[in-house]
Amino acid sequence: MTSPHAERPLRRRLYCLLEPSAWPKKGLSPLNKVISVLIMVATVVAVVESEPVVIEGREKLFLGIEAVFTLLFLVEYVGRLWVAGENSAYRGLFGRLKYMTTPSAVIDLLAITPLFLTFLGSEAFLLRLFRLLRILRVARLGRFSQAFDAIMTALRSRRYELMMSVGIAGILLLISSTVLYLVEGEHQPVAFGSIPRAMWWSIATLTTVGYGDVYPQTTPGQIFAGLTALTGIGLIAMPTGILAAAFSDAIQAQRRAQDDESEKHTGKS
Amino acid sequence: MTSPHAERPLRRRLYCLLEPSAWPKKGLSPLNKVISVLIMVATVVAVVESEPVVIEGREKLFLGIEAVFTLLFLVEYVGRLWVAGENSAYRGLFGRLKYMTTPSAVIDLLAITPLFLTFLGSEAFLLRLFRLLRILRVARLGRFSQAFDAIMTALRSRRYELMMSVGIAGILLLISSTVLYLVEGEHQPVAFGSIPRAMWWSIATLTTVGYGDVYPQTTPGQIFAGLTALTGIGLIAMPTGILAAAFSDAIQAQRRAQDDESEKHTGKS
Amino acid sequence: MTSPHAERPLRRRLYCLLEPSAWPKKGLSPLNKVISVLIMVATVVAVVESEPVVIEGREKLFLGIEAVFTLLFLVEYVGRLWVAGENSAYRGLFGRLKYMTTPSAVIDLLAITPLFLTFLGSEAFLLRLFRLLRILRVARLGRFSQAFDAIMTALRSRRYELMMSVGIAGILLLISSTVLYLVEGEHQPVAFGSIPRAMWWSIATLTTVGYGDVYPQTTPGQIFAGLTALTGIGLIAMPTGILAAAFSDAIQAQRRAQDDESEKHTGKS
Amino acid sequence: MTSPHAERPLRRRLYCLLEPSAWPKKGLSPLNKVISVLIMVATVVAVVESEPVVIEGREKLFLGIEAVFTLLFLVEYVGRLWVAGENSAYRGLFGRLKYMTTPSAVIDLLAITPLFLTFLGSEAFLLRLFRLLRILRVARLGRFSQAFDAIMTALRSRRYELMMSVGIAGILLLISSTVLYLVEGEHQPVAFGSIPRAMWWSIATLTTVGYGDVYPQTTPGQIFAGLTALTGIGLIAMPTGILAAAFSDAIQAQRRAQDDESEKHTGKS
Repeated sequence: MTSPHAERPLRRRLYCLLEPSAWPKKGLSPLNKVISVLIMVATVVAVVESEPVVIEGREKLFLGIEAVFTLLFLVEYVGRLWVAGENSAYRGLFGRLKYMTTPSAVIDLLAITPLFLTFLGSEAFLLRLFRLLRILRVARLGRFSQAFDAIMTALRSRRYELMMSVGIAGILLLISSTVLYLVEGEHQPVAFGSIPRAMWWSIATLTTVGYGDVYPQTTPGQIFAGLTALTGIGLIAMPTGILAAAFSDAIQAQRRAQDDESEKHTGKS
Repeated sequence: MTSPHAERPLRRRLYCLLEPSAWPKKGLSPLNKVISVLIMVATVVAVVESEPVVIEGREKLFLGIEAVFTLLFLVEYVGRLWVAGENSAYRGLFGRLKYMTTPSAVIDLLAITPLFLTFLGSEAFLLRLFRLLRILRVARLGRFSQAFDAIMTALRSRRYELMMSVGIAGILLLISSTVLYLVEGEHQPVAFGSIPRAMWWSIATLTTVGYGDVYPQTTPGQIFAGLTALTGIGLIAMPTGILAAAFSDAIQAQRRAQDDESEKHTGKS
Repeated sequence: MTSPHAERPLRRRLYCLLEPSAWPKKGLSPLNKVISVLIMVATVVAVVESEPVVIEGREKLFLGIEAVFTLLFLVEYVGRLWVAGENSAYRGLFGRLKYMTTPSAVIDLLAITPLFLTFLGSEAFLLRLFRLLRILRVARLGRFSQAFDAIMTALRSRRYELMMSVGIAGILLLISSTVLYLVEGEHQPVAFGSIPRAMWWSIATLTTVGYGDVYPQTTPGQIFAGLTALTGIGLIAMPTGILAAAFSDAIQAQRRAQDDESEKHTGKS
Repeated sequence: MTSPHAERPLRRRLYCLLEPSAWPKKGLSPLNKVISVLIMVATVVAVVESEPVVIEGREKLFLGIEAVFTLLFLVEYVGRLWVAGENSAYRGLFGRLKYMTTPSAVIDLLAITPLFLTFLGSEAFLLRLFRLLRILRVARLGRFSQAFDAIMTALRSRRYELMMSVGIAGILLLISSTVLYLVEGEHQPVAFGSIPRAMWWSIATLTTVGYGDVYPQTTPGQIFAGLTALTGIGLIAMPTGILAAAFSDAIQAQRRAQDDESEKHTGKS
């Protein structure tokens, strides 16, 4: 790993193929496109495999498929570890250890682990973790998208207002479940007999989901439920309004940035 | 079809009447208005006819009505094919074949086919295709509207963000159904016994539809369901915010265009 | 009614009190405030009276209350008719007849009629009309609000886009109910056995209401239902985006108008 | 309490710690952070305690915890009363009485009262008030947040439009429940037998909650219900649009204020 002259050109080329920010052209490199498709296929397989009707009698087949995916992701992980040296921050053995603790490298490592869990035993808990980890591989797709970054930036710019609207939602949830507990609790003790119980109804109403498994049956209960449902509209309107303003702002900022860019371009070249 | 001197004036006039972009005045030509109404009436008839109570004993009547519509749309199709020659791109026999492969001509052709399907037999599959094709005639209305174009332009300008919010929706759907499958699967194997099964619940919750045919009954299941429902609000807020920003942008762009237009107008005339 | 010298001052004063646009100060005149409260109380009484538990044994009392309201609204109507002469367009007998055909005068007249319906008989149909007309009195409140005008202006400025989003909603409704009818119709003939039947499910899903009285039970049905529910989010996002843009535009226009106003003000005075 | 020389420095320091607006640094003072956490913990305890499974056999433990919280909030209240004198408006005994009538002081006092209610007796009504007051303590958190102020300002700037959309919601609720009462009342007298009864269905539909406990079963009822559900989308779109415009406006105003601030800053220093 320390023969600098021999491996550079290959490592450099592989680095450009693996690291999205190092790819000179627009979009993803062919290798990263293949990896994206692999991640998606592995996720779909994990989803489908959870269905008893599908897996029954095909346990070995699916374990084989999982082994293939694990091997491919292992190769990819080793590859990423190797080319990380192109980035001066992760050079040498110590640098590689540092790279291994970055969030994206940890996620990549977790994507390999599921299969090894099956060697630890076959308890229900391990089996569940095995399945969850395989689904969470999908998080690896996050790094490949630039539109995702744009959305995240817009969300981050308004994070205080969004957190505050979560806070207001929490307080509304608290008040509506307290009121319904006081008003409806005696009539329906199973569904409204305590504040935490009433919260299940309250969250279904405030988010306008409305399963209909529990609902107030007394007149005062229905009046307060109606008020809660109306408040729920405000609860939807607030984050929507905040996000609409944030995206509108982002579009205008993007425009100005493009104007500045073109000015610089004409000035420099 | 190649007697250039005799038919031109009539073909030219019919072209202006049939082709929305060739109509010199604002809005739709009288002929296209009639065709729009015909399409709508044919669609309503197809909808109403699907009701067993309505069609029973009136099969021949409805087949007759369908025959009339097919004839009218056939005449319209031949007419459009003929006048297509006014457009230099579709002149001559080869040009007409080229015209027949344009999306709108294919849609027009499909609008005539339903009746002919009934001659092929009376299998359930053919009958269904027959009904579906008759309803899909409504797609022909798309070309007549300019406000539809304005909405489509606004949607297209933000397509990456919208696709990304579909992608985020997909990942949320995946994670929430995986969690509910792990948490609630043992208690309710029919509804949450696999990830694809849990997805039915998950999509009803994330979109805040909430049919209430399946819902978590254990406490951890209800806690994660509550989080899913709250996330669903974000799922509604994101595309709404993106669209609001896009429409707001479109209004401002339209204003600027009108200002430029009026400046040109005063300058030119 | 033609003694010009005697009645003018009183008629003029009453005109200012009754006609919102003639009132020199901000807000509503005291008389119109009283009338607004009367309309609201009459509506609440009509709502409460419809409850069998409330009205049983108190039929005469409620008829008496209704008689009082009818008398008050009759006096108001005659008053409005009289002072209409202050407006040059409605002067003289012919002008008064012209005034009686204006939409707001027709609404005012309808507000008096309910009681007279009870003299015509006591058929179920008349009784229903009687109740409906009493509730529709609430429409009279519309003219008193200026914020209502602001909202209406914003809606009107985007009416083509809003109509188009209603049109798109209609087409989505049509397509989703056709698909569900084809896919689920055989399995659940009562709920999905025809396109109009499937529409009841489809509208509950697209608007994210989701009563849960009918829902697809087959796998293909549930897949298309999930797609319909996701489309429903777009259906909510579109008018919301259009309205957000319209209100944003209205706020900016209002600002500019205020700036112009203050400029004029400083210029004129 | 009137030894001005001795207590000033301590009172001044405590005033800065207790009064958010007097704290010189950004964010909350350490003491207010501790108090915020205390309020949240007390609220969570009150929520959990309402669950019969939790409280059974632990009544004394929970009463003890409540006593500790009451003591702490009492100390805080006395502290705030004492330091209020730093504000010239609340100096002296009369000033303190004036301070005790401010909304936030009243809320603080209410936060201490729950425990004392238990001495008055153990009727159901007192017990309920006891629980409600303990939950309402959460309102005390309101004063600590500045993002909350930003949201409130945006809401206040558009209060007329928001009130108007509440008014429009009310009228839609009235009309849809009247129509459903007239159309569906005879078929389902329990659910739609009067306008107030139909309102329960109507509010669940207009807010798109859709519990599914009541829904129209006749064809005309389902047609009007469909229209109501579609109108419900407008009901959600209107406040969302208004809020989006208000937040968008607030962001721009904030920007301008920051620009002005930086200009002043460079001018002054």
